[in-house]
Formats: sequence, structure tokens, C-alpha cells
Amino acid sequence: MIILGVDPGYAIVGFGLVEYKNTRFMTLDYGAITTPPGIPMEQRLQMIYNDLCTVLQQYKPDAMSIEKLFFNNNQKTAIAVSQARGVILLAAVQHGVACYEYTPLQVKQSVVGYGQAVKSQVMEMTKRLLNLSKIPKPDDTADALAMAICHAHTAGSRMNIQNLGRSRL
Amino acid sequence: MIILGVDPGYAIVGFGLVEYKNTRFMTLDYGAITTPPGIPMEQRLQMIYNDLCTVLQQYKPDAMSIEKLFFNNNQKTAIAVSQARGVILLAAVQHGVACYEYTPLQVKQSVVGYGQAVKSQVMEMTKRLLNLSKIPKPDDTADALAMAICHAHTAGSRMNIQNLGRSRL
Repeated sequence: MIILGVDPGYAIVGFGLVEYKNTRFMTLDYGAITTPPGIPMEQRLQMIYNDLCTVLQQYKPDAMSIEKLFFNNNQKTAIAVSQARGVILLAAVQHGVACYEYTPLQVKQSVVGYGQAVKSQVMEMTKRLLNLSKIPKPDDTADALAMAICHAHTAGSRMNIQNLGRSRL
Repeated sequence: MIILGVDPGYAIVGFGLVEYKNTRFMTLDYGAITTPPGIPMEQRLQMIYNDLCTVLQQYKPDAMSIEKLFFNNNQKTAIAVSQARGVILLAAVQHGVACYEYTPLQVKQSVVGYGQAVKSQVMEMTKRLLNLSKIPKPDDTADALAMAICHAHTAGSRMNIQNLGRSRL
């Protein structure tokens, strides 16, 4: 299963692609889509959409894992981030990619093992699980990879439960 | 100048198309794009995007006028509305349509003549200015037409100023 993790934003969109097979991870690619300030928002949205479509076409992920937004995240930027999240969801559905969203709490629980983990712990565990030599930069990229891990663990559990269910039939 | 007015939303997107020429309006079309509850948000966003692209291709507007969102509009729905607004802006820029945003205050000032106007006054004036036999339903559609009028008046003023400037050269 190839998973695209996304940390949504309008200035920086972090993305990470991992393949999850037999409880092992292979890191395929990661990076950040950036848009310049000072140009109209609709042009920034188009840049995000176009770059993400390129990634989707190249790796054909089975699922996208994206952060769930809350209204109290950052009130000043929430509308702009949500607009960017809209075009990211659109790009995914247009490419037939199933979308899943997780809260920061779910990501911490899934990657580190407990929901009160701090950011540096999430990043360190992301690096270890993916066998990376160092923590990817910017933070948005590392966050995106953590999103992908979270979906792998969650979907992995679901599949195990399903298989268990079938074996009992 | 053909103007597409849009009232953004995720359940209902109001739209209205007017042609503005020599300070007169001609109403070309209006309606509402609706999406059903109970399906994933990314599918609703795709429906909005697809339907809006059809409108853009049919009427080839010169400008889109869309409501500016504020964080205190409705905190429960702001993220979902902003996501829909993102795909609406994307559709416009992909079709080469210039995007303009106006606050509710600007719309009231432009359509009724003063910023403290109530909703029913905006709707009544929209009906009169566009020579409609009745106020379009749902409200989202009437709001979208008011957005289009607001841009016509604002852009019309800008053009008059520019022409005046030129005639002085």
C-alpha cells in the first residue's frame, strides 16, 4: 500500500510518500510544495494543485492521509489553510485516491505510542520508523511523513482485524 | 463585462451571471450548486468544482466576485466553507477568470447604498437592479447576484476613473 501523507498549508504543503508492506516501511519520496507570498491566493492554490497532481500521477498512492483541521488551530490563517486543503482533497479525489484524516492526537498515539508526545519525539520516531539518516526539513515534510505512518498503522490494524475475522469464518 | 457572482458554501453554492454594459445590467443565468450530506467531503468538493467548471465554460465570465470570509462568520462550518471556496477559486483561475472578493459591508454599500442595510433590502434592490420578477431562491442565489452587482459597480467606478484620467492627458 502506497500512502501519501500531507501537511496542508498555503505557503508550505509538506508531503511524504511511503510504501507499507508486511509491517515494514519504504520511503519513496518527500518534500514541500512552496508558494511565494505577494501573489493572489488563487494563483497560490493553483500552484499547490498542479504540483500535487504531479506527485499523484508519479506515485499513484492508494490513500492520502491529511491532518484534520480545527477552528482553534490558528485563527488568522485557518481560512487560507482550509482553502488549500480544499484543493488538496480535490486533487486526491480526481486521481481516485481515498482520503483519510487524523487529528494531531491520533498521529502522536500512532507514531510515538502516546498522545502527549512532543513534536521532537514524533519527528525522531518518524526518522527511525522510516530509516532516514536525519529528520527531513522543513517540519511540514516531517509532519507529512508522520501522517503517512499514522494511516499505515491505522489501516494496517483494520486489515489485520478483517483478516482475523475472515479466518474465523 | 460578464461577471460571475458566487456565494461560497459546501452544501449550497449560489451563483449568478450578469452582463454589465453602459451602467445597465442583463441577467444571464443564476442558480445553486447543491451537494448531498452524508457523502465524503472530497466528493462534495469535486461536485462543486465540476459544476462550476461547466458554468465557467458556458458563460466565459471576465471576472468572478466572491464573498470574503471571516473567521467569526460561523465557526462550526468555516473550515468546510473555506475548503469549498478553495476549489471555487481554483476553478476560476484555471479558466483565466480574474477573482475579486468583497465583504458583506461592501456589498450592502454597493447594492443598497449604505452598509447598515438589512438582508431583505439587499435582496429587493438586487431584484430591481436586475429587472427580475421576484427574488431568486434560495437566498444563496440572491446573495451571489448581489456579489456580481457589487463588482460591477466597483469595477465600473474604477473604469470611469481611469477613463477620466486618460481624458485629462
